Amino acid sequence: MSVLVVGTVAFDSIETPSGSAERILGGSASYFSLAASFFTSVRIVGVIGQDFPQEYLELFSQRQIDLEGVRREKGDTFHWRGRYHEDINVRDTLELHLNVLAGFVPQLPERYRDAEYVFLGNIDPVMQLEVLNQIRRMKLVVCDTMDHWIQGSVEELRKVLKRIEMLVINDSEARLLSGYSNIVRAARAILKMGPKVVLIKRGEYGVLQFSDSSIFATPAYPLEEVFDPTGAGDSFAGGFMGQLARSGDHSQRGIRRAIVYGSVVASFTVEDFGVKRLTNVSLPDIEARYKSFTELTDFHT
Amino acid sequence: MSVLVVGTVAFDSIETPSGSAERILGGSASYFSLAASFFTSVRIVGVIGQDFPQEYLELFSQRQIDLEGVRREKGDTFHWRGRYHEDINVRDTLELHLNVLAGFVPQLPERYRDAEYVFLGNIDPVMQLEVLNQIRRMKLVVCDTMDHWIQGSVEELRKVLKRIEMLVINDSEARLLSGYSNIVRAARAILKMGPKVVLIKRGEYGVLQFSDSSIFATPAYPLEEVFDPTGAGDSFAGGFMGQLARSGDHSQRGIRRAIVYGSVVASFTVEDFGVKRLTNVSLPDIEARYKSFTELTDFHT
Repeated sequence: MSVLVVGTVAFDSIETPSGSAERILGGSASYFSLAASFFTSVRIVGVIGQDFPQEYLELFSQRQIDLEGVRREKGDTFHWRGRYHEDINVRDTLELHLNVLAGFVPQLPERYRDAEYVFLGNIDPVMQLEVLNQIRRMKLVVCDTMDHWIQGSVEELRKVLKRIEMLVINDSEARLLSGYSNIVRAARAILKMGPKVVLIKRGEYGVLQFSDSSIFATPAYPLEEVFDPTGAGDSFAGGFMGQLARSGDHSQRGIRRAIVYGSVVASFTVEDFGVKRLTNVSLPDIEARYKSFTELTDFHT
Repeated sequence: MSVLVVGTVAFDSIETPSGSAERILGGSASYFSLAASFFTSVRIVGVIGQDFPQEYLELFSQRQIDLEGVRREKGDTFHWRGRYHEDINVRDTLELHLNVLAGFVPQLPERYRDAEYVFLGNIDPVMQLEVLNQIRRMKLVVCDTMDHWIQGSVEELRKVLKRIEMLVINDSEARLLSGYSNIVRAARAILKMGPKVVLIKRGEYGVLQFSDSSIFATPAYPLEEVFDPTGAGDSFAGGFMGQLARSGDHSQRGIRRAIVYGSVVASFTVEDFGVKRLTNVSLPDIEARYKSFTELTDFHT
């Protein structure tokens, strides 16, 4: 089962307490697709500029990621520049150049329109709706968003929420969207907005999953060094959806296991700058850490 | 197997976003002993003033908590006044009156000196050492501390750490004590200071347990309302040690289960003001939530 992702393909310039990197490959669709590609085939819908190097495209091709939906437009590629604090959970955006992303309207190639697994990365909810309108049949749609859209485009976002199965969101965004500071109440309120499942990302503290009938809580994999947290959330979503597509198991048990796979993939991502770790880790590495994760959290046996 | 706790028995005056309470029963030994008393017999060493009401002593007696080690001294009881913010994880100390605690030197009754399970609550490390010197045989000593002692009495604290099996500490204190901001590195550094096991409390995010050979991570039980977080850490320690004493199982599996019991007891404590919830919950309630906790975290079955 292949997974379709709509999101950004970007240049990131990053400073962390551990170092810095200029114009490396970034963007939600990049992290998501590399993460999901360990488990299943992936198709990207996105836009790049004329300055986007062949070398980065090859990173995707090497992983059999389908790029037919990535349009190259006149102008420069979306570029984000950010700096992480000593407290790695805090970051400042120093520069944000939308460039070709400014006029981006997703256009799905004809053969993408039967996509069954769809991830709507963190883009304008108007564009997320546009994608939903172009897809003919959907098995599972998962959506991400951020404070910018919650504050500026909440009506459109509400329309998206009515048409998706699962929302992936971080804890502060869940509070903002729901108006509740308690995270359990926040999640219950968001469930009422449409999604059947709400996944709350809490960074180094792990993930909470809410549905009408069940709560699942899992810690994050403890690491001695978080080198660069960029893309952790999208890597989580990619590992999560990749595993769901691989297993075809949408039961509560299947969802929980996919959450742990997502957490494992995200734990690799943050071990190096940008997507670097995602390009040198293997599926056996991921399976081995999934096993460690089981041992890390088990108190039954 | 009975558990001995040395710590404060106090008056707390508390404001939280949910309400306020004046001069209610508080203190580390109070929360610890009530929490542990679900699982095993408990003995307290502490000090109270002449103003300490009989009614509060009866709360302990009703739970068969041994009060022979609680001395009543001339003067007033230790009194803490604090206010929690909208963000319930942040609190300000408004008043702190040591009163009879100022001259407190722990004196163990003769029949306490064979204590096998000992909890050194968050008091001056000099007093913690005094207790260790008075005990004849120890099976398991667990210790708590806080930023005040880490900053002001680190040499004495280091001596304590060499003589205990386990340290219970929150994440910011672990960073302060170790000098590392990464929590895995912080825990590894503290293990080198003496304890075989380090338990890192992360409030609503759960607990991490480190030993030389193993890491265990568990989330906290998600609650729709945290009414009053006071005493959560001591309730955790009480449930943890009570279960260890009840089971006698000090294996990694036994420690992990005890951590979950501690988390469960703490989750009850914060549901009402002060120790109130600990006085109206029952062991079957605790066992039922332990079962829920298992379902909350399980991704195997």
